[in-house]
Amino acid sequence: MVLLRRIIGEALRKRRRAQQRTLRDVSTAANVSLGYLSEIERGHKEASSELLASICEALDTRLSDVLGEVSRTVAGVEDSQRLEKMREARRARVATAPRVDATVTALRVRPLTHPPQRRVRHTVPEARVAA
Amino acid sequence: MVLLRRIIGEALRKRRRAQQRTLRDVSTAANVSLGYLSEIERGHKEASSELLASICEALDTRLSDVLGEVSRTVAGVEDSQRLEKMREARRARVATAPRVDATVTALRVRPLTHPPQRRVRHTVPEARVAA
Repeated sequence: MVLLRRIIGEALRKRRRAQQRTLRDVSTAANVSLGYLSEIERGHKEASSELLASICEALDTRLSDVLGEVSRTVAGVEDSQRLEKMREARRARVATAPRVDATVTALRVRPLTHPPQRRVRHTVPEARVAA
Repeated sequence: MVLLRRIIGEALRKRRRAQQRTLRDVSTAANVSLGYLSEIERGHKEASSELLASICEALDTRLSDVLGEVSRTVAGVEDSQRLEKMREARRARVATAPRVDATVTALRVRPLTHPPQRRVRHTVPEARVAA
């Protein structure tokens, strides 16, 4: 499951750091305690709609820009989680597949598309060796 | 200020209705009480990150898709609020602007870019009238 508050928190922290501002500075501007802002940035607390708007204003950032970035990050996480699920399902299919006897397995693993080549013995003529 | 929870609630309700599903159906699938889901859809309650993920799953919708739609809606609201602010600021400037005398005002309102045209009197020759 994607934890939205963690991704929102990271987006807010990234913007604050890009502006080289301290937690104290932004928390004062947004009228929120320093500790609470820190908890929000680390994804430990949910920010209410009012507080999120207030933090965005303090960062001189549009809420829609933050949400746009967040939705793209969430999409990336969802994609990789989906891929992981597909991989797991495949692994489970392989693990629970009925066993086949050794010969069939061998044929499956290395199908004989080409007939085995004869080994050609290269012998050096004795005349040459003598020379 | 943009109330994010209201816009999220509207996006969720829209999706549920598009699927022609009831509050009861989705609330059961998302493991949330019917009343709480209704409050979230109307923007009266904030949905936690976990609950939002659960509702999206119940609606068979990607959270990132909902967030993408929400960010576009928020951008639209922000744009119109910005425009309204600009209009208000303009109104305030006009209201507090120093008064100018009537002549200057008239000149400003209708600048004389073209010289006034002479009125040409069209007179009908008497001969024609007689005919």
